[in-house]
Amino acid sequence: MEMRIEKDLLGEREVPAEVYYGIHTLRAQENFPLSGYRVPHVLIQAIALIKKAAAEVNAELGYLSPEVARAIAVAADEVVSGKWRDQFIIDALQGGAGTSTNMNVNEVLANRAIELLHGKRGDYTLVHPLNHVNMHQSTNDVYPTALRIAAIWLLKPLSEGCAALQEALQDKEAEFAGVIKVGRTEMQDAVPIMLGQEFSAYAGAIARDRWRLYKVEERLRQAALGGTAIGTGLNADKKYIFMVNDRVRQYAGIGLARAENMIDVIQNADVFVEVSGLLKALAVNLGKIAHDFRLLSSGPRAGLGEIKLPERQAGSSIMPGKVNPIIPEAVNQVAFHVMASDMAIAMAAQSGQLELNPFMPLIAHHLLESLTVLTNAVKILTEFCVRGITAQPERCRELLDTSQVSVTALAPHIGYDLAMKVARTAMETGRTVREAALQLGVLPEERLDAILDPRAMTRPGIAGAQK
Amino acid sequence: MEMRIEKDLLGEREVPAEVYYGIHTLRAQENFPLSGYRVPHVLIQAIALIKKAAAEVNAELGYLSPEVARAIAVAADEVVSGKWRDQFIIDALQGGAGTSTNMNVNEVLANRAIELLHGKRGDYTLVHPLNHVNMHQSTNDVYPTALRIAAIWLLKPLSEGCAALQEALQDKEAEFAGVIKVGRTEMQDAVPIMLGQEFSAYAGAIARDRWRLYKVEERLRQAALGGTAIGTGLNADKKYIFMVNDRVRQYAGIGLARAENMIDVIQNADVFVEVSGLLKALAVNLGKIAHDFRLLSSGPRAGLGEIKLPERQAGSSIMPGKVNPIIPEAVNQVAFHVMASDMAIAMAAQSGQLELNPFMPLIAHHLLESLTVLTNAVKILTEFCVRGITAQPERCRELLDTSQVSVTALAPHIGYDLAMKVARTAMETGRTVREAALQLGVLPEERLDAILDPRAMTRPGIAGAQK
Amino acid sequence: MEMRIEKDLLGEREVPAEVYYGIHTLRAQENFPLSGYRVPHVLIQAIALIKKAAAEVNAELGYLSPEVARAIAVAADEVVSGKWRDQFIIDALQGGAGTSTNMNVNEVLANRAIELLHGKRGDYTLVHPLNHVNMHQSTNDVYPTALRIAAIWLLKPLSEGCAALQEALQDKEAEFAGVIKVGRTEMQDAVPIMLGQEFSAYAGAIARDRWRLYKVEERLRQAALGGTAIGTGLNADKKYIFMVNDRVRQYAGIGLARAENMIDVIQNADVFVEVSGLLKALAVNLGKIAHDFRLLSSGPRAGLGEIKLPERQAGSSIMPGKVNPIIPEAVNQVAFHVMASDMAIAMAAQSGQLELNPFMPLIAHHLLESLTVLTNAVKILTEFCVRGITAQPERCRELLDTSQVSVTALAPHIGYDLAMKVARTAMETGRTVREAALQLGVLPEERLDAILDPRAMTRPGIAGAQK
Amino acid sequence: MEMRIEKDLLGEREVPAEVYYGIHTLRAQENFPLSGYRVPHVLIQAIALIKKAAAEVNAELGYLSPEVARAIAVAADEVVSGKWRDQFIIDALQGGAGTSTNMNVNEVLANRAIELLHGKRGDYTLVHPLNHVNMHQSTNDVYPTALRIAAIWLLKPLSEGCAALQEALQDKEAEFAGVIKVGRTEMQDAVPIMLGQEFSAYAGAIARDRWRLYKVEERLRQAALGGTAIGTGLNADKKYIFMVNDRVRQYAGIGLARAENMIDVIQNADVFVEVSGLLKALAVNLGKIAHDFRLLSSGPRAGLGEIKLPERQAGSSIMPGKVNPIIPEAVNQVAFHVMASDMAIAMAAQSGQLELNPFMPLIAHHLLESLTVLTNAVKILTEFCVRGITAQPERCRELLDTSQVSVTALAPHIGYDLAMKVARTAMETGRTVREAALQLGVLPEERLDAILDPRAMTRPGIAGAQK
Repeated sequence: MEMRIEKDLLGEREVPAEVYYGIHTLRAQENFPLSGYRVPHVLIQAIALIKKAAAEVNAELGYLSPEVARAIAVAADEVVSGKWRDQFIIDALQGGAGTSTNMNVNEVLANRAIELLHGKRGDYTLVHPLNHVNMHQSTNDVYPTALRIAAIWLLKPLSEGCAALQEALQDKEAEFAGVIKVGRTEMQDAVPIMLGQEFSAYAGAIARDRWRLYKVEERLRQAALGGTAIGTGLNADKKYIFMVNDRVRQYAGIGLARAENMIDVIQNADVFVEVSGLLKALAVNLGKIAHDFRLLSSGPRAGLGEIKLPERQAGSSIMPGKVNPIIPEAVNQVAFHVMASDMAIAMAAQSGQLELNPFMPLIAHHLLESLTVLTNAVKILTEFCVRGITAQPERCRELLDTSQVSVTALAPHIGYDLAMKVARTAMETGRTVREAALQLGVLPEERLDAILDPRAMTRPGIAGAQK
Repeated sequence: MEMRIEKDLLGEREVPAEVYYGIHTLRAQENFPLSGYRVPHVLIQAIALIKKAAAEVNAELGYLSPEVARAIAVAADEVVSGKWRDQFIIDALQGGAGTSTNMNVNEVLANRAIELLHGKRGDYTLVHPLNHVNMHQSTNDVYPTALRIAAIWLLKPLSEGCAALQEALQDKEAEFAGVIKVGRTEMQDAVPIMLGQEFSAYAGAIARDRWRLYKVEERLRQAALGGTAIGTGLNADKKYIFMVNDRVRQYAGIGLARAENMIDVIQNADVFVEVSGLLKALAVNLGKIAHDFRLLSSGPRAGLGEIKLPERQAGSSIMPGKVNPIIPEAVNQVAFHVMASDMAIAMAAQSGQLELNPFMPLIAHHLLESLTVLTNAVKILTEFCVRGITAQPERCRELLDTSQVSVTALAPHIGYDLAMKVARTAMETGRTVREAALQLGVLPEERLDAILDPRAMTRPGIAGAQK
Repeated sequence: MEMRIEKDLLGEREVPAEVYYGIHTLRAQENFPLSGYRVPHVLIQAIALIKKAAAEVNAELGYLSPEVARAIAVAADEVVSGKWRDQFIIDALQGGAGTSTNMNVNEVLANRAIELLHGKRGDYTLVHPLNHVNMHQSTNDVYPTALRIAAIWLLKPLSEGCAALQEALQDKEAEFAGVIKVGRTEMQDAVPIMLGQEFSAYAGAIARDRWRLYKVEERLRQAALGGTAIGTGLNADKKYIFMVNDRVRQYAGIGLARAENMIDVIQNADVFVEVSGLLKALAVNLGKIAHDFRLLSSGPRAGLGEIKLPERQAGSSIMPGKVNPIIPEAVNQVAFHVMASDMAIAMAAQSGQLELNPFMPLIAHHLLESLTVLTNAVKILTEFCVRGITAQPERCRELLDTSQVSVTALAPHIGYDLAMKVARTAMETGRTVREAALQLGVLPEERLDAILDPRAMTRPGIAGAQK
Repeated sequence: MEMRIEKDLLGEREVPAEVYYGIHTLRAQENFPLSGYRVPHVLIQAIALIKKAAAEVNAELGYLSPEVARAIAVAADEVVSGKWRDQFIIDALQGGAGTSTNMNVNEVLANRAIELLHGKRGDYTLVHPLNHVNMHQSTNDVYPTALRIAAIWLLKPLSEGCAALQEALQDKEAEFAGVIKVGRTEMQDAVPIMLGQEFSAYAGAIARDRWRLYKVEERLRQAALGGTAIGTGLNADKKYIFMVNDRVRQYAGIGLARAENMIDVIQNADVFVEVSGLLKALAVNLGKIAHDFRLLSSGPRAGLGEIKLPERQAGSSIMPGKVNPIIPEAVNQVAFHVMASDMAIAMAAQSGQLELNPFMPLIAHHLLESLTVLTNAVKILTEFCVRGITAQPERCRELLDTSQVSVTALAPHIGYDLAMKVARTAMETGRTVREAALQLGVLPEERLDAILDPRAMTRPGIAGAQK
């Protein structure tokens, strides 16, 4: 393999001649052979976008030649569009607050720009990774700003996915509006409910999640470009500061604003904890719904069996014909995964010291991963599960008729203690509530029938009330 | 001890004649000898307030006699005002979705109302815990509504505490505005900063927390009264539903609104996850600030020693004269405590099933505890620590002068690589940056002096720029 | 209130004349108004025991007069036996690595010893909290050693509780050995199992927990007394070091040994993380069992209903006759609680710095609390739940007969694909597996009957095998 | 692309003709487009090894033809040796308790075996994924057994890595044995210590971790092969059960034993919680050490600067010459990562239901990932950091001389209160302890000098004691 020589403060080293990254990237790759996961590419893209904006602004202010700026911008556009992905080789779990990732982008853009200018990779007199590509920047202002941009980018599909899930749940709410069944509290038979009402509760939960995702986007909109190393703005021309944040806002297509206090924004990671906390709320709702689906579809014969999930694949390597609720199971695992990541983010954010949080790479990894897996989980839940759920109305009715849940409707008419006696009698004798009530003579038969209408019990009001 | 006999579905039992609670409470106390922690009293107070509203509305609608309603209301007022605290005896970690706590309140109010009506405790024909006090209610609509009220009540002092903390930090920002020092990233000397700027970043973080606490209150404002067992409203007169939520809003003094979908609000606990997630963001900020305080005040002689914390108590049983940063240390522990509680809340919320979350007592315990300990932690941090912090300007200046942080200001003028050479030379020879720069002849002396002004380096712009 | 004057490095203050604690305790109480929880008393007792041993050894070595040592020892014995509990007033969440708690014990013992010597509380010339009671000690060697002792003390009842639970589960294993039912994987009907076999799996899990608790005790047995401030042993006579650890071992009644490297033992808290991790494994098993109990007893009519839990209290304030699985629900909450505490312990342990972990009070609070609530949870699960569980064999058989779980036994005889066809046919036509198999003519009737014996399917081997 | 047709219970589908996986794998890939992470390959290898053993045993027992068994075994050997890696395409986060992964292995082995037998991929009459490759197996006994094997395999390099780390720390303990410095508690100057002693504490912590990893291996050694679907052994010849576990033990090269209660071992995941809890203890120790390294090497000039870490890469894109403690920072992030994964594992383990835990894939992902990243983190910490650490003895001595830590040695001689006065005087006047003691005339000069020898203070005993 042909090699070129590069140099840094530790000395010289050989770099494969054909790669766009350079000595900093290579050292970082060697230093962090940890997880095998790469830095999330959406973060690389956001950084490249910042580099483009910075190069252009620096050219407009006379710090960079138009040719160099143009070459950097073209190279950055290529990265944003998905090119050169294999040149970003550093492990997601890296020390150094993201410096290695920033360096990786600087080097790839510099070498690609050199190439565009017909130079030779590694000849940094033409385009220098630090003096030119990183001009007026520091990892410390670029990286958290890029993370905010990347997170906002990923929030959009998640939000759309939640909208589709909510809609699918509401479709089922309508479809199952007339399916009466046992409502259960603490997994014990409670009072009647419509299956559609159950889905309305799921839809309600997801609607809150959509609102949260919508609102939290605002919290991420603070850009710290020009804050440089610690937010004081050292080495950044003031005009640059104004212009570059504007330019990035424009290119990223999202409502960024220059942070008032960049020292704060650079060192504090609480906003990522906030976002992650809301993602966890979504995870909690998804986990609850998934668990309910598994419970309601349990059986198919020796369980509740009130709904049927779409069949997605054979469920067992030993039990022929078995089909499992694999989509909800996957969603439950995603929920646990995201809940755990939330803890990683909080620990990392809490452990920042003084002017910088060195654990930003961990925060970025977990936050962007959570956004991604949630988006995917919401999608499979919607498309591979919810849309295909069918009610089993006969089974619902059978269980309802077997149960004693109508006894609650008696209480306002005969008092809690007597109603309890009816319930206990029915349980001990194997009778229905109606039969036990008649046996105990608590009310005349026609009053009983007026009261014991399960459909009336699914609406507000005192069932069988005479006024 | 004189005893009275009470009865429930399990049979009869003796209850001490002089207590206000009854057989349900007694059984629950025996069933849950777990943590030794009582149910948070603020939750009891919120439940009592709901009982008062319900009794009044039920009287107005003709379901309860005015005398009985009045007696219940008086009894409830007493509880809200802090009376009868010793009658609420059930463990915080209890099974049953809060039913035992609701029963405890029902029984205490019933017996106290009976007493006010000159009856004999235990004579529930006068005032019945379920038929009268709990009329048109279920634990399942009362408990989560009460938890929301209690949480909103506790948010106010926390929010005020954060305002005071922010103000105290801003006072220090002003006081320390002129104290120049080393800024550090990754605990390594970075570039100059003012001590006041460091405090501005702390103030900025807490300002975000205030905003979060302010906004999240809205999310808690949904009342589910009248939803009864599972949110369908069975056994609750529609007029009651409208009136009782209004009445509770009025009495609680907070902007509650009747939930549109009570089935959703009763079974889903994601809003508590959301609130807890924001409390965790506050915990993260407090933890970071506390850690910084411990680092900046380390020493006093063999550490950084840039600030001095107020002395609060002797620090060691063996080392005379030692004083420790005990307030930040306590705050760090509160931060860990709250972060862990957040996980408990999320796990409990995620594990609800179908129409109810049986783990509401755990959620209530951790959420209200987090609100309380954070309020207390914010208060001691403000009053016992921040307000008394003093800067050590000479120490700050001494460390700044010793360091090489001014080298960054050279880079825009001489390029990153040459500036790096200056830094390495200074490090290896023990010289200052200025001396090394002169030795290497990178710039004339007067240009150097214009560039190497640390105060200029704490503001945006290129230090020593000539245009 | 009569007051006395005490003095410390911050100056003088009034202390109520009648209390045994002194100025250090008072300041700590004022500094940490945080959680309202007191320091776990078992920890106070372990510290007092160490104080007794130290006083005696110091007298034997001639550092303390026999009278003073005897008075301290008597006072310590009183505390160990449960006296003076109200004199330990400091919040569990305290800064300072436990110094305040150690000071509290020092002061109470000193003043009580003074009283025993007919002196006046506060006259520390007689018995001095630091010079005498704390002689040759530091919080930093006393506190972690005491925590180890306290944890070992609490492990014993937990271990015994697990033994009782295991036994109760095994009793049910025997009792339910002949109750055949549907085994379920992923909550879907799988293959037959005996209810007793299900309980054998629960017993097996708890047996592992017992083994873990038994083994982990060893890990706690390192005492660091004499290490003083940071483990180097400064200010501790070497003879004292040997003797005091021996004496404490003897008094505590547990196999303590002097740590080889006290510097390590004083600063590192990983052993508490280890213990907590094993408690979490127990919590996980308890949580799983509790969830299974809730699932198996769901209904009673519209759920699985395969077992019946003992009735412990009325379950609803609105639904007459409803009884809930409150004991398992409480156990599930304890499981979440302990899992969250494990995270608090790990975060605190990870955040120690250099020669000491200042967050030991948080670790102590959570570790001792976890031990206590788990002991209580195991006890109620055993006594209030497991012992009273009854099988519902008819219901088990009914669900088994309804299901298609016997189809798996066909696969070795007719192949997976054909067996799957039988299963699908049965499902679609509402027939049993036997009927569908006959319809499809896969095997002669008598071979089918030999194969489709559910009892045979609960044992290893190929059901109906002819060889 | 040429396609072949395969069929399952959902119908027919096209599969690319050249791939070894089949329809089940394809459906699973489509069902779980979640994380983008593949199933850990070490788990695939362990499953393949089990398949080989099962095929051989089945041939020996006459269930499989020798040719088919041999072909399966060869195919399995290829997978174990690392071949066909690209054929395992399913997402790590998958529903279904690992069935998809097991099916993926079954299909790849079947098709490869078919190929070896000169058949055509997809012609399962020759070698059937279920009837032949999966014979006498279920995912539910194969998967957890394979996970145990994979975990044991990964424990070995981790354990060796810990041994190397311990050794490297001990080398530094010896190298730094004579470097005297300030010991710090709560980041405040405490008493003298040798730098070597600090490293002895790190070595001691890692030694405990080694012991834990060594002991925990035993806990993983239970194999459940032959338990089939739920541990009852349905469809598994008893001779097979005995032979297959033996064979796997032999091939895996580890001390596996057949589980006594396979029902237990199949459904309960607590052993993975236990292992993960111990990994977390290692993470806690690594995190503590890494933080200490960052603190001790802080500066280089405006921090503690007592040690110097090896330089691994340039540290800043804006600050020339800055070098950061990137290896400890990466280790800290790995610690947070592993601590969070521990929570994911515990939640998943706790949520298993009845005869199976459907969340085994999440447990496998996190457990094997934790083992891997810890192994890597331990390695970089050892090789890229610890081995190259150098002491800065002059800086250590300078800080020691500046500090007042010797005052503690005075206390046994002059009492705590007077020693405190010396300390306060020294602090207020800027004098040394010796000077302040002389000024206050607490002891004659020569006694003072005998007592105030810092080296003596790093050993047990009363410094300057005359007896």
